[in-house]
Amino acid sequence: MPDSASAAPPTFDAAFQARLVELFRWRRDVRRFRPDPLPDALVEELLALADLAPSVGFSQPWRFVRVESAEARQAVRDDFVACNRDALADYSGERAQLYARLKLAGLEVAPVQLAVFCDESTLQGHGLGRKTMPEMLRYSVVTAVHTLWLAARAWGIGVGWVSILDPANVTRALGVPEDWSLVAYLCLGLPEAEDDRPELEREGWEARRSDSAAAIRR
Amino acid sequence: MPDSASAAPPTFDAAFQARLVELFRWRRDVRRFRPDPLPDALVEELLALADLAPSVGFSQPWRFVRVESAEARQAVRDDFVACNRDALADYSGERAQLYARLKLAGLEVAPVQLAVFCDESTLQGHGLGRKTMPEMLRYSVVTAVHTLWLAARAWGIGVGWVSILDPANVTRALGVPEDWSLVAYLCLGLPEAEDDRPELEREGWEARRSDSAAAIRR
Repeated sequence: MPDSASAAPPTFDAAFQARLVELFRWRRDVRRFRPDPLPDALVEELLALADLAPSVGFSQPWRFVRVESAEARQAVRDDFVACNRDALADYSGERAQLYARLKLAGLEVAPVQLAVFCDESTLQGHGLGRKTMPEMLRYSVVTAVHTLWLAARAWGIGVGWVSILDPANVTRALGVPEDWSLVAYLCLGLPEAEDDRPELEREGWEARRSDSAAAIRR
Repeated sequence: MPDSASAAPPTFDAAFQARLVELFRWRRDVRRFRPDPLPDALVEELLALADLAPSVGFSQPWRFVRVESAEARQAVRDDFVACNRDALADYSGERAQLYARLKLAGLEVAPVQLAVFCDESTLQGHGLGRKTMPEMLRYSVVTAVHTLWLAARAWGIGVGWVSILDPANVTRALGVPEDWSLVAYLCLGLPEAEDDRPELEREGWEARRSDSAAAIRR
């Protein structure tokens, strides 16, 4: 018996599959957080799980920044306010009124905030799999973000992905290496409420398309 | 009691969390498939689960193409062979020998193959969240791919993401709308074997970095 018991491939039963579907259904983009701090060990566990995400050429190009200082957080909030004002100006009439009512970030309250970068110059992976599709490096970072998101929800933690930001401004404000590009800015915390419908659907911004997963055949 | 029982938020217990961690650990990029066909209903269920992925502005921009005809599959295989030959030419010495030995796609055997596109011109979501980061639309497609990947593994199905392809060639070969951009080409099928270590690690191409999830603080 050369292998330890822990190396036996797991089988996932129908009960697990059903719970996994519930996890997908109840994951939300959270913008309304309770201010309670999160245990540091839990945040570190979530980061370690994100590290199990797939990556092109096994490059593990994700780089995490915990944004904690009042100064850094203020810079991000200021950038969001400016970008959100610009975005609002693109809408008119009822759509503009609706946009102005939406809550699109939890930056004031979320106790944990993570900026997630892609190390564009990493040598890890030796370039495998990204010659014709260099964007695969950033896509790998996205799968790490999504892994963290699902794991967080399974531990009762809400995650919100804020993209109404100027990546250049955030990168500069955080003083990270020049060859890191911002992929995501995440707010983490206990959610005020839970729901199986996206907030944008409940607020009337957009409806779910039922046929969006229907494949065409070639 | 206005809400049905199914609308009660789920709680995920320690047993589920432990199994979810196993799912993350045992998900693999699979290149060695058994030829057995997959039930059509299962493939459709996986696509429906992918549709639960997060998307910027609730845009659901993923578009799935099931690549089934001999002609389309041959075009993809031919493109892979050409791109892989080009990629090999970038390496020399032992690294080139190692690259040449790697099996980097399961295109000959995988019974189900999916090309996953991003509909760059979708009006769904009304542009919300992608003014300063237009790449969010493609990142949304990546989370759908990753959702499908995890769900597939939970159902015992292996997934391999082939990126050694020229997106323009694949897009042209499949005759999809001009404003769809290729994000991923996926092989699905029963895996020949299961492992908790990436094949690139086992083959000596790249080692796991233990500190890649360590966050810096700002």
